[in-house]
Amino acid sequence: MFIHTVFFWLKDKEDDNARKALHQGLQALAYVDEIQTGYIGTPATTRRAVIDHTYDFSLTFIFPDKTAHDSYQVHPDHLKFVDNCAALWGEVKVYDALTED
Amino acid sequence: MFIHTVFFWLKDKEDDNARKALHQGLQALAYVDEIQTGYIGTPATTRRAVIDHTYDFSLTFIFPDKTAHDSYQVHPDHLKFVDNCAALWGEVKVYDALTED
Repeated sequence: MFIHTVFFWLKDKEDDNARKALHQGLQALAYVDEIQTGYIGTPATTRRAVIDHTYDFSLTFIFPDKTAHDSYQVHPDHLKFVDNCAALWGEVKVYDALTED
Repeated sequence: MFIHTVFFWLKDKEDDNARKALHQGLQALAYVDEIQTGYIGTPATTRRAVIDHTYDFSLTFIFPDKTAHDSYQVHPDHLKFVDNCAALWGEVKVYDALTED
């Protein structure tokens, strides 16, 4: 599997319209065909020194392999999401992982 | 769902025994009953400015809810993993997310 994990920090945490727009954009994004399983999340209430709970939204997309992930990256719906939503976030962190199964 | 995502950086990236020991510890950890789906990963070959590929291992554990995650945190196999492996990593980052489904 190829696990694509992204954390988004809103440019303005007080901007409820921006929060709603990013949330809706992410929800729509999860329907892209190449994604085997897609999760959109928000920070849980867990608090320990090693936990980063400062992000606003998370995305965990599981692809069968890197080829599927690469197709997703250039999928029109993904490009549209970036066009529509990139102005909303101030920071984004991406972690891509390959698993053994 | 409750998604528990952890990234591990080995204290010594050149220490192959430490790498093997942490890998084996993580693989055993994924069998804890409370975990609905568990993935252990290593950095994919993707490279963009927003991607952090410097970690050595990732863990993505999906729990049905926070209660299951909280039980996992105090599960004897998890505590044993921390006891056995904490000396191997120099840094760890945890992101906990709640999803809507």
